[in-house]
Formats: sequence, C-alpha cells, structure tokens
Amino acid sequence: MTFHTQLERVACAVEERLDRLLAQDPVQERGPSPGGAELGQAMRYAALGGGKRLRPFLLIESARLFGVAEKDALQAACALECVHCYSLVHDDLPAMDDDAVRRGRPTLHIAFGEPTAILAGDALLTLAFEILSDTQTHPDPAIRAELVLNLARAGGWHGMALGQALDLSPERRGFSAGDVAKMQALKTGALFRFACEAGAVLGRSSPSERAALVGYASSFGQAFQLADDLLDAQGDASALGKAVSKDAARGKATLVALLGVDAAKKRLGALLEEAEAALAPFGDRAITLLETVRFAANRTR
Amino acid sequence: MTFHTQLERVACAVEERLDRLLAQDPVQERGPSPGGAELGQAMRYAALGGGKRLRPFLLIESARLFGVAEKDALQAACALECVHCYSLVHDDLPAMDDDAVRRGRPTLHIAFGEPTAILAGDALLTLAFEILSDTQTHPDPAIRAELVLNLARAGGWHGMALGQALDLSPERRGFSAGDVAKMQALKTGALFRFACEAGAVLGRSSPSERAALVGYASSFGQAFQLADDLLDAQGDASALGKAVSKDAARGKATLVALLGVDAAKKRLGALLEEAEAALAPFGDRAITLLETVRFAANRTR
Repeated sequence: MTFHTQLERVACAVEERLDRLLAQDPVQERGPSPGGAELGQAMRYAALGGGKRLRPFLLIESARLFGVAEKDALQAACALECVHCYSLVHDDLPAMDDDAVRRGRPTLHIAFGEPTAILAGDALLTLAFEILSDTQTHPDPAIRAELVLNLARAGGWHGMALGQALDLSPERRGFSAGDVAKMQALKTGALFRFACEAGAVLGRSSPSERAALVGYASSFGQAFQLADDLLDAQGDASALGKAVSKDAARGKATLVALLGVDAAKKRLGALLEEAEAALAPFGDRAITLLETVRFAANRTR
Repeated sequence: MTFHTQLERVACAVEERLDRLLAQDPVQERGPSPGGAELGQAMRYAALGGGKRLRPFLLIESARLFGVAEKDALQAACALECVHCYSLVHDDLPAMDDDAVRRGRPTLHIAFGEPTAILAGDALLTLAFEILSDTQTHPDPAIRAELVLNLARAGGWHGMALGQALDLSPERRGFSAGDVAKMQALKTGALFRFACEAGAVLGRSSPSERAALVGYASSFGQAFQLADDLLDAQGDASALGKAVSKDAARGKATLVALLGVDAAKKRLGALLEEAEAALAPFGDRAITLLETVRFAANRTR
C-alpha cells in the first residue's frame, strides 16, 4: 500500500469512528427539550468531513511500531482529533483570529453563530476526555488515565492553550525567531508530541523508545509548521481552503518571514534529517513515520 | 463545628489547593516566551477569591459518608470547581450572557479581554482533567479514570454544555415549566450530580448508596436553582454581586416566573423533603448534606 493510500485509509477510519462517536440518536435529535439538536450538529460540522487527520495518523502509526492494531488506537486518535478540532473552532472566533473560512467552508461561528461555536468547542474538548476514559479506548485503566493526563498537559495552560495565548499577546509583534519557535512548539507542537507519546503509551514502550518518538515529534512539529508558513508565504487561498498571509497582515512575523525563505527551506531539510535520525532505533518498522514527516514537509496544501 | 464554620473551612481548603494547583513558578511567570504569564493570571482570577465552593463541599461531604478523609477528596473537588469556573467565564462572554459583573468584580473578559477569557476557560476545563488523572488525586487508576469519565459526561454535550445550549436556543422563549426544569437539570444539575457521584466513586460505595446520592443531588440541584430564581426575582444586585432579573429582561421565563412565587416556594419545600428522604439510608452520617441542601434552599445570596 502506498503512503497516500494508507493516509487516506486511516482518515476514512477516523471519519467513521468520529461519526459514530458524534451520532445523535432519535431522542437526542429531538433533544431532551426543544432546541437540543443544534449543539450536536455543530460538533459534527466541526469534527467531520475534512482535514488530513495527520494527528490521528501519527498516533496510530506510532502505536503500530509496538504492534498495536489500528482498531485499538482509533479511539485515542479520535480523542486527539476532537481536541484539534475544538482548537480550530475557538481560534477562528471573532475575538481570536476572526477567520471566516476553514477547509473551504464557512467557519463554525459563521455557520452556527458564535455562542454555539464556543459551546461546541467546549463540548468537543470535553468529549475528548470522555473518549479517552472510556473502557472502549483501552481495557487497562492505568493506560486510560495516562492518556488523559498526557492529553490534558498537551492541550492545557502549559501546552497548546499557552501557545495560542502567546500568539495573541501584545508582545507577539516583537517576537524573535526563537520566541516564535517556542510559541509554535506549544501551539501546534504539543499535540503532535501527544500523538507520538500516546502511541508509546498504548504500546507500553520502553522509556528510550518513547524518548525517541518525542524527538521525532519535535522535529515533525517544526517541519510541519515551517511548511505551513512557506505555503502561507507563497500559497493561494483556493488551494489551501483558508485565508493566506493573515499573520503578516496582522503584523505577526512567521519563522519564514524572520529567517527568509531560503534559510527556512534549509532548516526544513535539517529537520527532516533530525526526524529520520530520531526514528533510527525503530529501523524499517518506522518507514511510514518517515514518509509522514516527508509528506508534512513537502505538502502543497 | 457549626455548618457555616464547616462550609467556610472547606472553602478555605479549596482556595488553598486551587492556589497551589494554579501556582506559577518564577520561570512560568516570565513565560517560556515573552507574554506567557497572562493566561495563568487570568485562570487565577477566574478560579480564586470567590464563591461559596458549594460543589466542592458537596463532593467532599459525599465522600466523607464513606470514610474518605477531606484531604483525599480535595483534588477531585478542585477539578470540579475548575469546570464550574470555566463555565462561568464562558457563559459571561459577550456572545453568551454578556455579563460584566461576577462575584462583585469585573468578569474575566472585562478584566483580561475576550481572547484571554476564552482561552482561560478552555485551560481551566483542560486543567480539571489533568487534576483528575494525576496520581495525587487517587492512587488507583481505575478511580481516576472513572472520575474523568463522569466529569466529562456531566460537563459535556449531554450535560452542562447542552444545558447552556438550550438556554441560548431560539426555542428558549417558548419553554414550558417542564422544559425549563429539564434544561436546568443539565445546565446546573449535572455538576451537582457529579459532585455527589464522585464522592461515591472515591468512597467505593455500593450501587444503592450511589443511587441514593444521585437522588439527593437531583433534589439539591432543583432546590438550588429555584432558590436562585427566587433571589433573582426578588433580589438586589449589590447583595448578589451580579446583575439580577437578566433572564426576564431577555424574555427567558424562569421556573419561578412560570410557576409563580407561591407555587415555587411550595415546590422548594417539597424538594427539601425529597432530599431528606434520599439521605435516609445514611442516617445521622448525612446530617451535613442535609444542612447543605437547607442552606442552598434558604440562602439570601
């Protein structure tokens, strides 16, 4: 199976499972009181029908290194995707990045209104922890509790939420390249790190294997973000399905703007080498993870 | 010790532990990048220095029924309070209830701006699950995972978040008394239920004891809300520390408006009897929980 076929296959499996996790039964559809169906519909709008599902893919492929079957990593992968989708919904809000288009569709607050968008984000975040703590995710409660702890740390006030706060802070306009890198390690890196660590947790890996995956995730996150910034600097909105060059318009220099395009491309190449080196302990088993970081670095949308 | 002394003592213990859980070390205070301290400061503003801490109190007193020491229930109680505080922050947002005053102080988005308020709410919700899944909360991972599952269900799209969505729905203006009661059971009742169930989980209670506490929590939640609505109908803003009669101004009939003040007071009396009956299996051990529901029903602010 080629890498792209594998990526699409996993995306379909994630879509299917999310669809089931967000299913509204007929009673729910009517709501416990009038007006009860809208929240679930908004959550479905935010979580279904889009995205490359890269984070779930990383989680599933990391778990596979240790012999964990895809079906046994799918729930944790969906929990992670719920957190990613909630973060997009809240980041798009008028008070935050004020984005009207996401994945080629109106953003959630445009489609459902701002109050429902705030609540649907809250509920997707909460659902992530409901999924992780469910026995269907893993029979061992110690594994479930560890996944919850890791995801809460990755998403929370020392992780993704802090990254977004830094990106919105007044100081952001004066950030050095180092500051931007640290911010991005939190804002987007923390969830990539969780993806790889969760695979290690599900696979009961050794500490050194887990550390290797964390190293890979770090290089992956930086490469992903640099590629994103390069696309943003050069890209066109219709191919990306979202607005481009918005950071620049807001006076927020990206790493690409601070380093220059040539240096950024060189750095991207170095990050690919770092990712490859981090995967060395896994040998040929890690071929898909290696292809994933190459894909993330070289994608055109 | 009188009931009020006990309530205040537990509120102090909760405040202290939340203060510790939200402590920012000197490095954190500077932030990993410039601008990193504000999020934590906003979370502290939202979670510290106010409130009767009724939900933590219910959790701690429910756990005490089964011989669980206060110190061993305190972390779970603080996690619950984090969810309560996040819900207040998000409910107060301009797009939601648009409230400017809470506990006699400016609401979080007034004090810190809307983006930080959204993020601080998100981060408090996330922190709740970080706390619950921490070994300090309970040494047994099965207990930790069960607490996470219960809190996620109570706060999520079939619980509190749905209740808030119903309250904001266009259909809200036409709600019957039954619809309002169902909405309130979700919007405020679900966390009271979690408080009592978490006590049963920590105490490894029998299923029938847990069911008795759930029954108590249901009566408690309804009584609390009726008392709130009665205060809102009759109250003055300076004593309550928040705006009054806002529901009426928005064309949202409360249960008191739909039933009338006299019938609402009668219903409150019946709920107190129901709560007392639910506690019967616990005998004298449940005296504090009985006093708590009486306090919630008869409070003047």
